[in-house]
Amino acid sequence: MTSRVRIIGIGCHPEQLTLEARSAIESCDYVIAADKGQDDPLLALRRSICSSAGVELVAVPDPSRDRSSGLDEAGYDGAVLDWHDARAAAYSSVISARPGTVGFLVWGDPAFYDSTIRVVDRLGLEYDVLPGVSAISLLAARHRLVLHEVGRPVLVTTGRRLAAEVEAGHDNLVVMLDGRLQASELPDDWDIWWGANLGSPHEELVSGRLADVVGEITASRSRAKDADGWVMDTYLLRRASPAG
Amino acid sequence: MTSRVRIIGIGCHPEQLTLEARSAIESCDYVIAADKGQDDPLLALRRSICSSAGVELVAVPDPSRDRSSGLDEAGYDGAVLDWHDARAAAYSSVISARPGTVGFLVWGDPAFYDSTIRVVDRLGLEYDVLPGVSAISLLAARHRLVLHEVGRPVLVTTGRRLAAEVEAGHDNLVVMLDGRLQASELPDDWDIWWGANLGSPHEELVSGRLADVVGEITASRSRAKDADGWVMDTYLLRRASPAG
Ligand SMILES: C[S@@+](CC[C@H](N)C(=O)[O-])C[C@H]1O[C@@H](n2cnc3c(N)ncnc32)[C@H](O)[C@@H]1O
Ligand SMILES: C[S@@+](CC[C@H](N)C(=O)[O-])C[C@H]1O[C@@H](n2cnc3c(N)ncnc32)[C@H](O)[C@@H]1O
Repeated sequence: MTSRVRIIGIGCHPEQLTLEARSAIESCDYVIAADKGQDDPLLALRRSICSSAGVELVAVPDPSRDRSSGLDEAGYDGAVLDWHDARAAAYSSVISARPGTVGFLVWGDPAFYDSTIRVVDRLGLEYDVLPGVSAISLLAARHRLVLHEVGRPVLVTTGRRLAAEVEAGHDNLVVMLDGRLQASELPDDWDIWWGANLGSPHEELVSGRLADVVGEITASRSRAKDADGWVMDTYLLRRASPAG
Repeated sequence: MTSRVRIIGIGCHPEQLTLEARSAIESCDYVIAADKGQDDPLLALRRSICSSAGVELVAVPDPSRDRSSGLDEAGYDGAVLDWHDARAAAYSSVISARPGTVGFLVWGDPAFYDSTIRVVDRLGLEYDVLPGVSAISLLAARHRLVLHEVGRPVLVTTGRRLAAEVEAGHDNLVVMLDGRLQASELPDDWDIWWGANLGSPHEELVSGRLADVVGEITASRSRAKDADGWVMDTYLLRRASPAG
């Protein structure tokens, strides 16, 4: 029997599942989830989604990732690729032992800063992808924002690249994967719309002139982390128009 | 009685509603939808969503929009703002006559190239926003794409601005609001992942080296338009790596 994989975006909380995602989960024989160790909060959330859908979750210990912060960009890319291979190998052995329709539940939307598509692609199996509500959309909704000025662009990027993007002239950016609020080191004035743990009962929101709210963001970030045991944050950054 | 507005992202087909969006629709006393004239397909879709939710839809004739193509960017922005005001005035008079919880159903996600938040903001009423699955996420899912290379950015922009963005050095872009495949006029080689009427039963997908698939895209676009009576398309464009 050949297996088939479904990559399912689940949004940022259980009520953010789409109707089609819920049906897709129910269509699976089981769901594979990476287990990043004790008290993995995203694993717990997947577990609860699977148990409401009546589908078994198989937790697969996550290969450790080389997170050496001294890596340059090429080294970083290489480490990521090795880690994709290691994950693919781990999933492959589970699936060979247990053929069927196998689901992967992706936080937010699989199209943004998530490795599941790249890893599953290595398995050589038939697969499909269902979109989900990304943290980007949820951030915008909570702040009641359109992410760009009328007809203008928005750049979606990472904390690691933020300084270079601003140097290159960007003035309207969504920043993900930034645990250190890199925006606070930028020259000039910026407006920020920030959110942490969006969708959790302890989500935090801060907005305002960046220089005025850095302290509040730092405090809110710790509060989210204390309350949920984990913290993920993202923000929209827009060059401030000169004060009137 | 004061009214309250809910702006609800509905994704790109009825099964792409989130569970929370469905509850939010059910919580409304009625839904307002812009009526763009005879056989408005997006109006028909909203009507069917409302009727499954058992909520009345009030269609409000859409003020005509100045679409003069000769406008420069400032003129374009001005026309858009006037049109936002006209829409706000039309909705305001409906809501004053009939206070309650009023829903607006936004195609895709309200954060991307949609005027609803800006229009509702002018009403001076309490409102909240629920995110939805955007056409961007659906495009990526259908092509099983992550929208950026590992750790790299993606620019979300419009057909109108595409040439300038490429000139500025962008090599990985999602293009919306482009009825004329502006990508086909770019210098150099590009890979494209294109989709029209995503989520409809007649959706079309094309991908490949841009120069090789322009004809196929044009044909697919007409086919979608003939089949559905409307066409909306979007694409990811990535600078081609030199052929190996
Ligand atoms: C590995 S990426 C995954 C993004 C995900 N695929 C999506 O579409 O939202 C993780 C980053 O997404 C953002 N993020 C994800 N969930 C979030 C949440 N609930 N609240 C705030 N930011 C979140 C943070 O920037 C975090 O560093
Ligand atoms: C006014 S914008 C609204 C975008 C919407 N808010 C979203 O999040 O998808 C309309 C543009 O979105 C894209 N679009 C919307 N729905 C689409 C669909 N079903 N298939 C392909 N493109 C779509 C097209 O580029 C279209 O010109």
